This record gives sequence, C-alpha cells and structure tokens, in this order.
Amino acid sequence: MNDCIFCKIASGEIPCMKVYEDNRTLAFMDIAKDVDGHILVVPKKHFKNVLDCDEETLYAVMKTVKTVSNHLTEQCGYDGVNLLNASDESAGQSVPHLHIHIIPRKRNDGIDAWPRFEGAREDIQTVFEKVKM
Amino acid sequence: MNDCIFCKIASGEIPCMKVYEDNRTLAFMDIAKDVDGHILVVPKKHFKNVLDCDEETLYAVMKTVKTVSNHLTEQCGYDGVNLLNASDESAGQSVPHLHIHIIPRKRNDGIDAWPRFEGAREDIQTVFEKVKM
Repeated sequence: MNDCIFCKIASGEIPCMKVYEDNRTLAFMDIAKDVDGHILVVPKKHFKNVLDCDEETLYAVMKTVKTVSNHLTEQCGYDGVNLLNASDESAGQSVPHLHIHIIPRKRNDGIDAWPRFEGAREDIQTVFEKVKM
Repeated sequence: MNDCIFCKIASGEIPCMKVYEDNRTLAFMDIAKDVDGHILVVPKKHFKNVLDCDEETLYAVMKTVKTVSNHLTEQCGYDGVNLLNASDESAGQSVPHLHIHIIPRKRNDGIDAWPRFEGAREDIQTVFEKVKM
C-alpha cells in the first residue's frame, strides 16, 4: 500500500535495523514508542492483520518468527521469547500491516507480558456458549 | 507426555470447554487464574513451545488460531483479537505444552494487552548488534 510505513520498510524505501530477511518476510528492530529492543516480523505483501491475511503468508511469517526466536535463544543469550499480535484497532493495533512482536526474555528481567484486564468481563460459560464452533 | 495437563485435555482424559478441534489441534476455553473467557489453541502432539516445535505443528496451530479468530470477529460480535505466546519459563510460560492465547477484543473493553517493561533494558543499538542474523 502506498502510504503504509511497513510496506515502505519492506521495500527499502524507509531504512530499518534489519535482523533477518527472506523472500516473503522481514524482521527488524521496533523503534516505536517503547524502544525496548524488541523485534517485529512482517510479511512483505500487505495484509492488515491475522484476520485478513492468507494462510501462506501467515505460515511464512511464523516460520520467520520461529527462525528468529531460535536464533535469540540459541545464539544470543536469551532464555525465551514472548510473541504478541494485535489484530484490529480494538486490540491495540497501531500500524495496519500484519506484524508479530518478538520480545526476547531473560530470567528475572522484570518484564510482565501478561495483559491487564481492567474492564468488566462476561463469565466464561457465557463466552463459551457464544464462541464454540 | 504422561503428566502434561494439555496432553490430557487433547486426548479427552481431562474435559474442557471445546471451542474447535481438528486432527492436529484443539481450541478450548482457558479456565486458569484469569477466568476472562479467552481461548487457548494447542497442538495434540506434545511440544514445549515455539522454540522446540516443528514447523508443520506450528502451521497447524496457526491455522486453527486464524480459523477461531475469524469466527470470533465474523460470527460472535468481537472486533479483533490479541494473540499471545510465552515460550520458556522466563517468558511466563506456566504449562510446558505449546499454546497460543486468543483474547477476543471489543472496542473500549478496558483490556491493555501491551507488556509492562519494568526492568532496565539495553539500548536498541546494543540489542541490534547482538541479534542481527
């Protein structure tokens, strides 16, 4: 898409700190608001998020997520990773181009990657009746 | 694995609120500590997490994640989803069987799915030099 920042990064029009690249995906440092050294994995083809992407693209992205995650833990001294995705503005998605966050983790690093639930939620049985397929 | 609770759920030995099932994966309501109505997707074959799983299993899990996510937004009145994974105890993984959390989202639902970074972090350039492939 012409005005998509991640499309521009994927095409090289905007520079990035490139961690890994293959034919269909790119992994680069997230320099946005948090500046915490975590990594984004994006497909080069534009999709908004997991909801509208095709399966082939999702698999390519996850292959790169796994490649980078294994590199982080096997070669870079990290113990684990958190993977995060926001699909839709309601979920906190800020850039409308599919991206998976990889947060490198070390034991006792002080990061809490668990969401905060501050709103009122429905009870689990009510949700289950609604969502079961 | 004999003592793995998610293997027992996948085999039917322990009951669950089953949202979706196919040959290789299962999606069910998370009834753990948060009781917030979110969904877990697991492979039936045991792997600890994204770091040790094979690609075929990861793709099967993500196919189910997408299927359930599309169902939530297209059929169940949700606007979006957050996807979360913890790979390794350092990342907060509590059950050592690969699982992806799907958190259904609605606009202004009061959930903050962004991690808290409370520890001291390295600067982005230092991390980049360490992790680039």
